[in-house]
Amino acid sequence: MPRPALIPPGEFARVAASLEPDARLAMLADMCRFNALTAVKRAGSGHLGSTFSSLDVVVHLLWEELNVVAVGFDSPDRDVFFSSKGHDVPGLYAALNALGVIPTDRLLGMRRLGGLDGHPDVGVPGIEANSGSLGMGISKARGIAWAKRHLGRDGRVVVMTGDGELQEGQNWEALQAASHQRVGRLLVVVDRNELQSDRPTEEILALESLQAKLGSFGCRVVTCDGHDHAALRSAFRDLWEEDDGTPGVLIAQTVKGKGVSFMEHPTALRDGGGTYRWHAGAPDDETFERAAAELEEGIRAHAETAGIETVVTELVPPLEEAAGTSLQGEPESGAGAPKPRPRVTGEYVAAAYGEALLELAAREPRLVVLDADLASDCRVRAFELAEPDRFVENGIAEQDMVSMAAGMARHGLVPVVNSFASFLASRANEQVYNQASERTKVVYAMHYAGLVPAGPGKSHQSLRDASLMAAIPGVTVVHPCNAEETRAVVEWAVLEATESVAIRLAIGPSPRRIELPAGHGLAPGVGSTLREGDDAMLVSYGPVMLHEALTAAELLAERRIETAVVAMPWLDRVDPGWLADTFGGVREVLVVEDHAPVGALGDTLRRGLAGLPEPPALDVAGVEGWPACGTPAEALRHHGLDGASLADRVALALPGRAGA
Amino acid sequence: MPRPALIPPGEFARVAASLEPDARLAMLADMCRFNALTAVKRAGSGHLGSTFSSLDVVVHLLWEELNVVAVGFDSPDRDVFFSSKGHDVPGLYAALNALGVIPTDRLLGMRRLGGLDGHPDVGVPGIEANSGSLGMGISKARGIAWAKRHLGRDGRVVVMTGDGELQEGQNWEALQAASHQRVGRLLVVVDRNELQSDRPTEEILALESLQAKLGSFGCRVVTCDGHDHAALRSAFRDLWEEDDGTPGVLIAQTVKGKGVSFMEHPTALRDGGGTYRWHAGAPDDETFERAAAELEEGIRAHAETAGIETVVTELVPPLEEAAGTSLQGEPESGAGAPKPRPRVTGEYVAAAYGEALLELAAREPRLVVLDADLASDCRVRAFELAEPDRFVENGIAEQDMVSMAAGMARHGLVPVVNSFASFLASRANEQVYNQASERTKVVYAMHYAGLVPAGPGKSHQSLRDASLMAAIPGVTVVHPCNAEETRAVVEWAVLEATESVAIRLAIGPSPRRIELPAGHGLAPGVGSTLREGDDAMLVSYGPVMLHEALTAAELLAERRIETAVVAMPWLDRVDPGWLADTFGGVREVLVVEDHAPVGALGDTLRRGLAGLPEPPALDVAGVEGWPACGTPAEALRHHGLDGASLADRVALALPGRAGA
Repeated sequence: MPRPALIPPGEFARVAASLEPDARLAMLADMCRFNALTAVKRAGSGHLGSTFSSLDVVVHLLWEELNVVAVGFDSPDRDVFFSSKGHDVPGLYAALNALGVIPTDRLLGMRRLGGLDGHPDVGVPGIEANSGSLGMGISKARGIAWAKRHLGRDGRVVVMTGDGELQEGQNWEALQAASHQRVGRLLVVVDRNELQSDRPTEEILALESLQAKLGSFGCRVVTCDGHDHAALRSAFRDLWEEDDGTPGVLIAQTVKGKGVSFMEHPTALRDGGGTYRWHAGAPDDETFERAAAELEEGIRAHAETAGIETVVTELVPPLEEAAGTSLQGEPESGAGAPKPRPRVTGEYVAAAYGEALLELAAREPRLVVLDADLASDCRVRAFELAEPDRFVENGIAEQDMVSMAAGMARHGLVPVVNSFASFLASRANEQVYNQASERTKVVYAMHYAGLVPAGPGKSHQSLRDASLMAAIPGVTVVHPCNAEETRAVVEWAVLEATESVAIRLAIGPSPRRIELPAGHGLAPGVGSTLREGDDAMLVSYGPVMLHEALTAAELLAERRIETAVVAMPWLDRVDPGWLADTFGGVREVLVVEDHAPVGALGDTLRRGLAGLPEPPALDVAGVEGWPACGTPAEALRHHGLDGASLADRVALALPGRAGA
Repeated sequence: MPRPALIPPGEFARVAASLEPDARLAMLADMCRFNALTAVKRAGSGHLGSTFSSLDVVVHLLWEELNVVAVGFDSPDRDVFFSSKGHDVPGLYAALNALGVIPTDRLLGMRRLGGLDGHPDVGVPGIEANSGSLGMGISKARGIAWAKRHLGRDGRVVVMTGDGELQEGQNWEALQAASHQRVGRLLVVVDRNELQSDRPTEEILALESLQAKLGSFGCRVVTCDGHDHAALRSAFRDLWEEDDGTPGVLIAQTVKGKGVSFMEHPTALRDGGGTYRWHAGAPDDETFERAAAELEEGIRAHAETAGIETVVTELVPPLEEAAGTSLQGEPESGAGAPKPRPRVTGEYVAAAYGEALLELAAREPRLVVLDADLASDCRVRAFELAEPDRFVENGIAEQDMVSMAAGMARHGLVPVVNSFASFLASRANEQVYNQASERTKVVYAMHYAGLVPAGPGKSHQSLRDASLMAAIPGVTVVHPCNAEETRAVVEWAVLEATESVAIRLAIGPSPRRIELPAGHGLAPGVGSTLREGDDAMLVSYGPVMLHEALTAAELLAERRIETAVVAMPWLDRVDPGWLADTFGGVREVLVVEDHAPVGALGDTLRRGLAGLPEPPALDVAGVEGWPACGTPAEALRHHGLDGASLADRVALALPGRAGA
């Protein structure tokens, strides 16, 4: 791995003090790009494309337009700026580090426990709002502006949104209210970089008449080049001067990947054969070095033009632990990680899911697949390419997607709906309830269910989805543990199930192959025993937590505690016969949830076990409180869900065996 | 009570066959109004205002524009029509009855068990989609049109929306996708009656540029008088002829309450001093008779003009049982209801909530109240009038409301957010999660929580909200049982709680006064014993289910089974000391949920009781499956949650006491 470098805050101060406004801002933005690149590389993941497209606006706001640096982030009279999408936060972190708000060691600990969250969190200095879940920012900004006015405080509110993000309907709710309520001092900047997750906005869901749309919702709209600081200055001035209470909107025309030639749109899109590679994920070593060199060269050119010395960079200390599985699923290198550290296989249950859909396309002509701009992450791109007439792209609009699927299901189709679990189960919850109430069948593929990868943070980690779906009548929640079980679950859901099915899927690589017993077939409500043991029993599901449970059992065996491990993929139903066979005579059970400790398997088993003549003592280990951001190992350990912690918990629960 | 009458289907057929198109349609619409009025009067509730505004369009579609009557509701090639808002379903029921699709006895059983649901349900003949939850219809209609195209089926899709309903962001998600995907054969009719729940749309949240908005979202828009059948005919023809795949939208300018002079906008709004009384609820006897007489006179005039005999009406059989508590909370008369039937008091916990807010306004200057067009139902109208600067009306946009509150909370205010539990906990779930993740405090007032009133049906009954909120870290879910406890909870939530609080509130009158022990103070996680008893224990919360639990205990006492009754308002946390004191030594506990049996108090107590040395046997009675539509007594009995059923369940669980 190359030794990345950072530009220290002092250099930012020197540049800011020595140049004319436009040259200063352009140079500072490239310096922030350089540091954001390093932070993302070290983190192993992050959104470089929109970090780079947004950085001129961010720098313009912080160094020139807003009062916040002058009055301080604690001042009630400060101007407030935040990004609604939040993916672009590495750029904001870099800017806040340059301004001395965020210490350098935290910047270097991005997506690590105790470092900086993968998406904005107000626990980080200078971060004004939690985001990462899309479409909420304009509403929040209006609330802030309303509070300022009500409390007689100074300060304006600027919120940045993505352009793809505007597909979320909440934006239009917020704009119509902003226009009607005339709160004032509210400005929206649209980072109009024309690309969303991996394809052009105009392909996914056209925004072509964006100016007209915004205008018809009562906004004052100005469009300008989002990398031209003179144009930005003039646009901001116009929008503030004409503030009549209605929201001002600046459509900042930007270039996704700006500053690194091979990451820039449209070059990068062409090079990627129609998909954009730099939306999320860290570059590999060679690409990182090319990108860093380009940015450094650009910064040198700025300095040369301005006639100042170029900035110095400082090598950053080597990583103590690899940053873990990213959304793209790069296996973590694990060097120096605490033991027992996760093993990593080449198995992705989500890939098995995508293959199963393709295979089912031939067997079930009624099968159709819907997506909300996560086709690559949800592994349905192959289906889209093979079956374009049976694939529907709805853009970032989960509610619309679910209700569209409901209409399709009522009229003879079997829709499979894809998104991340955190968005699908939550934002579209009322729509799922409504669909299920029509007694039709829709299959919900809830990707990225569970604690890890833990780098993106709490907006993306999904630890509540089982509880959100399980109380809906007629929805089965199931979480398969390996590729074969995933295929079997998808096949059962599409071909056999009579009601809706929510399938929780891990997004990263399986830390180990979970081997189900030979001949084990899929039967609703029935689990299987992976390992026998008379002293205690661990019950879990999914590749991540079953790996930890098995690791715990292995560690306990070294302490002569024989622990059974049971895989139970059905989170909201349990077969009474299997329950009696499996748990009869067992004394101690620890359920290991890849979920909050409420609303998932533990509660389901408690309900079932209450019917046994001598129910075992049942303990539940789950993600308590807010999920930690960090590497998988860090997050698992933090929540006491790594194998070693689980082993200790089991041992402690056994009478007289605590010291074993 | 007056003896309402219906016009039998034969008379509709005679009129349809004998008149010219325009005269026929206008007369049929008034005849439907007459029958819908009778159905609503018998039901004790229903939405007359939008039923009347939409009926000309509905009649025009069913009798002339669409093929569905000709090809049948089972034909895959049928045209599909449904209402997205669904409030207007009494008019559609009347039309479907007139066409012979719905039998008359079901029409007369509207909002009764086994009759017709208060909001559309596909289990009813001729109903194409479940609605009542707003804003989903355009998405669903697009899914239906997509399925028709994919499967090579004939038929067009027409969905009606309200105008206030367009405040929900999902509509704009759906329209942008419809425009982009060009599915075709999709038409939206906006019932532009200019009033929402009880005030003008332009006051709540202006739609003034509706045509421009729709146009900018890629729709082909035509506006016409929604009561002029020649204009409607021409508008439909234009929209279908110009179908280029983009959605057609007909803005039908209608009059809310059309057909009954004193229900018509704007007269009715003026008479109501700025609020419209006929959005929901049944008219009293005198008003009903005036309205029926006016409609009958209008129908007679139609016949006279056309030169045909006027239609005959038939008196309907008297009600066997009163239709129960409506949303407006009229106490049910209960004549002939099964025993033990609910008692009804003058106590409304929601009213106590509204009073508490008003009182707190003086004590907590940071308190602000947000509403999503349910200010009257949520009892915050008085607050709005008294504290207009501290009240924010966001229109029908729950997500926007919650995120706006999040922004306010971050900047020094204590927002109290109001909506129905079914909408707030579900549609805005991701926004609540995001808000809570900022570690601020927002108070969520979740009105209409629980099973009753059961007339509006499953879109409105809220039996999942505790499970939806309880898995969010830092949110307390509490359900008070009487006016004093409600005041105490609101005061605690606003003044003392350090994290967010979700308050479940019954919307109807308390069936009895729940008397808490003298000197009982509010303490988080602590319940109170209402009645002692050594044989068994019932645990519940809220005025509705505690009444049933007390009734059960009274019935059991007659059978010499002494049953304790415990009120436990805290649904997601329990104080260990109180738990041990209350449940130690108890053998049989039945938790009575005003909720699904998962995700609420039963699960919380199971988790807590597992720590006791000898935990009691715990059984949970809750609303299994889809909540029944009917009177309170019908719904409670259907789910086994009435006092008599609960008493039987307790008795059966006691060893050797089943026959007691």
